[in-house]
Amino acid sequence: MPTGSDAIEPLSRRERLRAQTLDEIKQHALAQVAEGGAGALSLNAIAKAMGMSGPAIYRYFAAREELLGALVTDGYGELAEVVRSAAAIGPRRAPARRLAQVADAYRAWALANPYRYGLLFSVRPPGYAEPGEAISAIQPAMGTLLELLGRVAKGAADARARGAGGAGAGGAGGAGAGAGVPSPKLAGQLRRWAGARGEDETAAPALLLLGVLTWTRLHGIVTLELAGVVGDMGLDGRLLVQAELETVVAAAASGIIPSPATATRRNRR
Amino acid sequence: MPTGSDAIEPLSRRERLRAQTLDEIKQHALAQVAEGGAGALSLNAIAKAMGMSGPAIYRYFAAREELLGALVTDGYGELAEVVRSAAAIGPRRAPARRLAQVADAYRAWALANPYRYGLLFSVRPPGYAEPGEAISAIQPAMGTLLELLGRVAKGAADARARGAGGAGAGGAGGAGAGAGVPSPKLAGQLRRWAGARGEDETAAPALLLLGVLTWTRLHGIVTLELAGVVGDMGLDGRLLVQAELETVVAAAASGIIPSPATATRRNRR
Repeated sequence: MPTGSDAIEPLSRRERLRAQTLDEIKQHALAQVAEGGAGALSLNAIAKAMGMSGPAIYRYFAAREELLGALVTDGYGELAEVVRSAAAIGPRRAPARRLAQVADAYRAWALANPYRYGLLFSVRPPGYAEPGEAISAIQPAMGTLLELLGRVAKGAADARARGAGGAGAGGAGGAGAGAGVPSPKLAGQLRRWAGARGEDETAAPALLLLGVLTWTRLHGIVTLELAGVVGDMGLDGRLLVQAELETVVAAAASGIIPSPATATRRNRR
Repeated sequence: MPTGSDAIEPLSRRERLRAQTLDEIKQHALAQVAEGGAGALSLNAIAKAMGMSGPAIYRYFAAREELLGALVTDGYGELAEVVRSAAAIGPRRAPARRLAQVADAYRAWALANPYRYGLLFSVRPPGYAEPGEAISAIQPAMGTLLELLGRVAKGAADARARGAGGAGAGGAGGAGAGAGVPSPKLAGQLRRWAGARGEDETAAPALLLLGVLTWTRLHGIVTLELAGVVGDMGLDGRLLVQAELETVVAAAASGIIPSPATATRRNRR
């Protein structure tokens, strides 16, 4: 299911049939995973259900792990699309509100697809493909997060520049209060990551870090909710996510990027 | 393996043998899980390895899920003990440093026991016991976190009270900058949770929230590291944890509890 708007070369009939079969196999696999997790996946059962011979299905997926890997990559792509769509609702709304939309949609997808979410982020057993391809598939979601966080930061920096005096030069909390300031080593890793993935590698390392932590924080709450921990504590996962989002927005607005008045211009690629 | 110092009633010979067998079953189960995750667990295989009949092992665990539940509860208990021990190293060290020790030890346990960690926090399939008992087993770890965070907060409040002027009444960032302030509804849930678990329910809700978020944040980074995501991004999980810990400590120190000068006395149970 291509969702991009790029022109795509038409497929030959043979390629189309193969793509159709791949898709059908993955639909069966998803249904199995939705029932009972990754453990419930069986290539032979899928072949049987599709009226294929056992050996025939192995021409599509050489091993169970390969099919699981394909499901993971698809799932990352779907989750990235969930994030992108949620951010796109009300493009003129305040970026903080759109961040909240993103967090709610991310959590809703995980709760609606608990086993798939678990599959995406479970411990990689030996023999699994490296997650590199899958990570690339979720990369656009990180881009969305960074863009919204950058807008929050810019809005706050502009407001500080306009209202010099008042809350003081640093604004509420001084530069970066509440935002983690990465160590030089971590800052280097974040810059390389951003550069390799086509993000703005000249972005403030604190902003890149905040983007990553926004994801790890959201993931942490959602997985503990799926494991039944949050509910057992009598806490509402949605309220926890909202509270966490507030800390993220406050951090982004706390001088994570300098005000225009004091900023030095930087080349943007 | 009792670790407490309370006097324990001696067990009868029969009870001791039963406890020994339970323990042996769990050792086998742990070895299976360590090899290939929860999916690798088989009661029949354990019975065979122990020279028991199939039916005999079911007198100890009525179902695979029951054995998994026992492993989860044990794992939570072990993790709580890891946290307690790490916090106890250098009891006179600064609480922020001891928090870092806790985070490092928690992460190290997860990396050393990836499948067990995954088992503790995986999606509960239907049929699993409610996690209530397991959650109780990890509760002491939350107590440790809250105590250390409370000390950070108290130290900062005292410092603000001593140095009135300087950074201003609110201290760096004003009251609670960087710490999420829970909504009234979430605050109520947090208080009920604290009260039910024997924590100080009169603690500031922002402190209780920060304790919960410290765990969800740490868990988020660690699980994404176990899933291979952090490494694939070229990031060092330990540096991410350190950066996150800094945000937690900064939040705890940012006026999350009022300075003694302005605090109203509260009954402590």
